[in-house]
Amino acid sequence: MKDYNKLSLEMHRNNKGKVSIQSKVKVENKDDLSIAYTPGVAQPCKEIANDQEKVYEYTFKSNTVAVVSDGTAVLGLGDIGPYGAIPVMEGKSILFKAYADVDAFPICLKTTDTEEIIRTVKLLEPVFGGINLEDIAAPKCFEIEKRLDEELDIPVFHDDQHGTAIVVLAGLINGLKLAEKEFKDLEVVINGSGAAGIAIAKLLLSVGVKDVILCDRKGAISKNRQDLNPIKKEMAEITNKASLDGELKDVIVGKNVFIGVSSADCLTKEMVKTMGEKSMIFAMANPIPEIMPDDAKEAGAFIVGTGRSDFANQINNVLAFPGIFRGALDVRASRITQNMKIQAAYGIANIVKEEELNVDMIIPSPFNKEVAIAVAEAVKKAAIDDGVARV
Amino acid sequence: MKDYNKLSLEMHRNNKGKVSIQSKVKVENKDDLSIAYTPGVAQPCKEIANDQEKVYEYTFKSNTVAVVSDGTAVLGLGDIGPYGAIPVMEGKSILFKAYADVDAFPICLKTTDTEEIIRTVKLLEPVFGGINLEDIAAPKCFEIEKRLDEELDIPVFHDDQHGTAIVVLAGLINGLKLAEKEFKDLEVVINGSGAAGIAIAKLLLSVGVKDVILCDRKGAISKNRQDLNPIKKEMAEITNKASLDGELKDVIVGKNVFIGVSSADCLTKEMVKTMGEKSMIFAMANPIPEIMPDDAKEAGAFIVGTGRSDFANQINNVLAFPGIFRGALDVRASRITQNMKIQAAYGIANIVKEEELNVDMIIPSPFNKEVAIAVAEAVKKAAIDDGVARV
Repeated sequence: MKDYNKLSLEMHRNNKGKVSIQSKVKVENKDDLSIAYTPGVAQPCKEIANDQEKVYEYTFKSNTVAVVSDGTAVLGLGDIGPYGAIPVMEGKSILFKAYADVDAFPICLKTTDTEEIIRTVKLLEPVFGGINLEDIAAPKCFEIEKRLDEELDIPVFHDDQHGTAIVVLAGLINGLKLAEKEFKDLEVVINGSGAAGIAIAKLLLSVGVKDVILCDRKGAISKNRQDLNPIKKEMAEITNKASLDGELKDVIVGKNVFIGVSSADCLTKEMVKTMGEKSMIFAMANPIPEIMPDDAKEAGAFIVGTGRSDFANQINNVLAFPGIFRGALDVRASRITQNMKIQAAYGIANIVKEEELNVDMIIPSPFNKEVAIAVAEAVKKAAIDDGVARV
Repeated sequence: MKDYNKLSLEMHRNNKGKVSIQSKVKVENKDDLSIAYTPGVAQPCKEIANDQEKVYEYTFKSNTVAVVSDGTAVLGLGDIGPYGAIPVMEGKSILFKAYADVDAFPICLKTTDTEEIIRTVKLLEPVFGGINLEDIAAPKCFEIEKRLDEELDIPVFHDDQHGTAIVVLAGLINGLKLAEKEFKDLEVVINGSGAAGIAIAKLLLSVGVKDVILCDRKGAISKNRQDLNPIKKEMAEITNKASLDGELKDVIVGKNVFIGVSSADCLTKEMVKTMGEKSMIFAMANPIPEIMPDDAKEAGAFIVGTGRSDFANQINNVLAFPGIFRGALDVRASRITQNMKIQAAYGIANIVKEEELNVDMIIPSPFNKEVAIAVAEAVKKAAIDDGVARV
């Protein structure tokens, strides 16, 4: 096993980070300078000043996304601040470039105040064609995304919520083919009700899943709970139809999908044994999943996925976000609709060919470059269908 | 004459702007991803969270500058807003890269409020190693630069002020050699008292110029004027020692330097004839200078410079800003001192070798790549001397 910690420190030190700015044109003589800078540059400036939409025609806005964080929920490290968050945001930027040729710039804000984050992103909007929110703690991430989605006319996407949800949905789409079931046959328990858990619940309900039960550290979220914050209270209204109470071990009985966005080893073999037939388990805690795949299989699970690259069925956000922004930018979408997210999931799922599809291959490899192209196409089409495309 | 307007529109359209984001490392397989992104990336994140200074070691902050504008004073176009300003800021970014390998990112803010601009730049600071303010209208540009200089520990530089002032000073340094004079022999009239005019006045006084008279549209700025804004009132205290009043034609009599940062054709041959011996004229209005070089020469001027590339002695900011930030970033300067600006001017001036120096060659070509290197060296040394270098 390579020492990735050591290698990562060396690589970051040797390169002084990972992101650089490049010029798409050369400025080596008087003509170059007169075209790219003064006096010629005044012309595109005037065209845009007269018709703001031309900013998409003449500037880098058309292909540029801000990766915005306040550093409050970075990886599993928690609130490490905006400076500590930079390597992750640079990582995101280079993935955007490698997978979808999107120019993504890391913005790490020296504030954790919801209103100030919203205001700042709105002030930065002129140069960006889209906003990828990243590693902002729940519950404020919900308010920030909701408000920016309403108040900006460029796409806003909180990857920790929707990226994960979309890839999980892609896995379920293919899992259902193998299990010969439909969404309406699924009863889901999601362990973990932060950003990802809540987004997964909403996305699954929107495609026709019968019921979802969200659990937090205190157990199932239900209308009976008196200790819920506003977003959990909202979720209690639309999930857990039977208002079941109790711990994970109580509410998982008879369910056929477990989705873990929680912590190591919280799902036992005993619990898996109580699940319904052809159960699917997505145990995404990192680096140690909620249950190890071998244990889950032994306990009867039909399909198991994790967040790890060394097991089958890796749920990796990189399958979603590059293609989603590629598609959204290409049709200059004003926002990312729920349908665009669903179609992105189908785009990912459909990359796995019928003859390849098996319980250890429900999700394509994160290095399959066809995925982003397929996702972008699916997202573009959905944006046009939904009337949010502007070209 | 090429149609630069048309060529510029085509170029900007074909390339969709000029700036792109690139990765300094590849992400093509599991090892790459594990080093540049999860799980390895957690290690530099943790190092920085424990010791914030390590952000310079492990991230792109060390080489990255924000080119910040609100679009209120763009070229000669005026207040065309943050969208219209983008092509200019992209132009600046690619010049930073081409001349000094600085990664500069355009930030065009959707606000013109002084406090909001200051606050936003401070919130953005984590990812930037320096702030280049650009095309922000006077007088608020002074307050914005002053406050950011005080409140941030990274270099802040308003190029419209100091870039121009530094290149003018470089021209004067070489002009003095030819005229066989010293700074104390100079009596200067500056026509135009916006950002550039005021910065030029301050810089010249700081190197020992005997007196400077600033003029605005109403004539000479003196203590007798009752209509001055705070910055002009401040300038009236340190310039125009004899408290001369009157128009440009009145106060230019007997002076030996004219610096124009004003408008076309406002300096006549008759006025030049009244100037002192071996007069130097920097007529930088664009595209039409305050006086055409041939006319100034005919009227007796010793040296003439303009902002234009088709005349001798082009005063072009690109001679200054790339090297200044290169030097400041290399020693992690906490600010740009007045001495660093002066030394930058000497760095530019000294590029013109003794044997090349003549009245039509006091300033090096903007395409001479040695200039930025020399400026960076001079700035680094000055930063160390001034105790603002941090490595």
